[in-house]
Amino acid sequence: MDIDDLKTRILAGERRALARAITLVESGRVDHRAQALALLEAVKGHGRQALRVGLSGTPGVGKSTFIEAFGCMLTGRGLRVAVLAVDPSSARSGGSILGDKTRMERLSRDPGAFIRPSPSQSQLGGVARRTREAIDLCEAAGFDVILIETVGVGQSETMVAEMSDLFVLLLAPAGGDELQGVKRGIMEMADILLVNKADGDLKATAVRTCADYAGALRLLRKRPQDPQGFPKALTVSALEEAGLANVWDEMCGLTDWRRAEGHFDARRAAQARFWFEAEVRERLLARLSREPVKGAMRALAGQVEDGELTPSAAAEELLSTHLMMS
Amino acid sequence: MDIDDLKTRILAGERRALARAITLVESGRVDHRAQALALLEAVKGHGRQALRVGLSGTPGVGKSTFIEAFGCMLTGRGLRVAVLAVDPSSARSGGSILGDKTRMERLSRDPGAFIRPSPSQSQLGGVARRTREAIDLCEAAGFDVILIETVGVGQSETMVAEMSDLFVLLLAPAGGDELQGVKRGIMEMADILLVNKADGDLKATAVRTCADYAGALRLLRKRPQDPQGFPKALTVSALEEAGLANVWDEMCGLTDWRRAEGHFDARRAAQARFWFEAEVRERLLARLSREPVKGAMRALAGQVEDGELTPSAAAEELLSTHLMMS
Repeated sequence: MDIDDLKTRILAGERRALARAITLVESGRVDHRAQALALLEAVKGHGRQALRVGLSGTPGVGKSTFIEAFGCMLTGRGLRVAVLAVDPSSARSGGSILGDKTRMERLSRDPGAFIRPSPSQSQLGGVARRTREAIDLCEAAGFDVILIETVGVGQSETMVAEMSDLFVLLLAPAGGDELQGVKRGIMEMADILLVNKADGDLKATAVRTCADYAGALRLLRKRPQDPQGFPKALTVSALEEAGLANVWDEMCGLTDWRRAEGHFDARRAAQARFWFEAEVRERLLARLSREPVKGAMRALAGQVEDGELTPSAAAEELLSTHLMMS
Repeated sequence: MDIDDLKTRILAGERRALARAITLVESGRVDHRAQALALLEAVKGHGRQALRVGLSGTPGVGKSTFIEAFGCMLTGRGLRVAVLAVDPSSARSGGSILGDKTRMERLSRDPGAFIRPSPSQSQLGGVARRTREAIDLCEAAGFDVILIETVGVGQSETMVAEMSDLFVLLLAPAGGDELQGVKRGIMEMADILLVNKADGDLKATAVRTCADYAGALRLLRKRPQDPQGFPKALTVSALEEAGLANVWDEMCGLTDWRRAEGHFDARRAAQARFWFEAEVRERLLARLSREPVKGAMRALAGQVEDGELTPSAAAEELLSTHLMMS
């Protein structure tokens, strides 16, 4: 593969080159990995600093409808929008969110938009790295807004929040008791809560739910990166395309303030450090899953199970003999 | 230190030698560590196979009173009892559970008992290793029953369950709604639930609470290592020393069945493997906290924060240059 040519075409904003580059960073092949790293290094610092928006919400809350409506509104204003998905469950289920682009028919045909389904990887760590690298490639290709979608499952929300400039939680209108279904830790990560489906019969419930969440947000500890009024709860109707411009205005206002106060750059720096350290740990531990260490570990585990070696002695043996550590 | 002499005295059941040996395995010094490993290897396979009983319960539930009463009942039957404590919070608070032996005045003076407070270590992993090694030493010293106490906080319960032959959860009498305060994951680890304080005004509440827990246990998925009727909920009064003999009978009945069915040995083998693998991972990651890797990592993290290197490129650099990995 001609990395120089690919670089030039990505920087020119060619969507097909971008798609090919993302396929390259998703590949598990060793030679592809080397090319991917070279490409990422080559495009680094070029392109635009996009606004990275993490978006989470449980199935049924209307994520696809929201992304389609919100994305089309942004492209209508001349902005280029990339949509990436993080779905840790896709490896198990075989399916993947955004795998079926027909769920976002209008946006997927939009020349200002780029939609990429979740890679089907088995490891959350691998998904994280590939998504981060896809974000870098989208920025190099000049996209203005990158929406990173995830389902509200397990640790994927934390992961997406750690690679986003702002984190949005999409919620359904609900009775008062159901508010507590949102874990406190997830609430604390959110910059904006969006109560969707504020339309038709559900409109009144959505408004009340939004007020309830606003009350819950006021009880959270104030964070330095929040201007007055944030984190904030808003209603929106993806179906009727109502409230979308307001959401974008709030996002821009929040981002402008954070840029001016230095929080924007500080967050990106902290995130970069976080991912560097996470990747080091992950790759160090990955050695244990590769031969010949894997085989040696299996053999020693057998001796430990049989009581021939204590766990500590076996660990010592593995580390000193097979991992060059004393 | 004369490891051979220490070994001989431990195998003879000398409590002072046991205490000294546990201090040795708790030490962070490199030369002590080598001696500790030699000692553990030397005593391995000698001594008795004790019954290791994990015991958890939140503060105020009467753990110390229960251990004192239960321990004295066992020593009264001619059994030798060791009590170890795992307290991940002791490093922070400066205190430690069991630190004040006056809380178990009778048991601490009992020649058939050995009580050891929690080591004040900062890392849960370190606490786990030292506690496992202390268990091995107590077995070598011929103790019949080893009670491993922990507070119901964070991951310490999982850790204690992973080093016990059976796991007991001590509970307080409570109103129906409070049952849900016990996390499902903790319930699923328990072999026996003990509702303490079944005495005086609280007796009726304790009986009702016990029935509620028994009902909750029946809803859990059946485990292969459970005979008919287990996991089981019982009432006990540590204060009035009522129900203690019954608890011991149930423990023995459960253990006899598991031994006969092969579950006892299978659990110990699986635990040994678990701790071997955990120790390998922990010690591998510990390299990142030691010089010169630590300094190199800090320097690279700085470059990552400044945007000079991508997280992936920095991780590659650290792993290939400083951790001899490609």
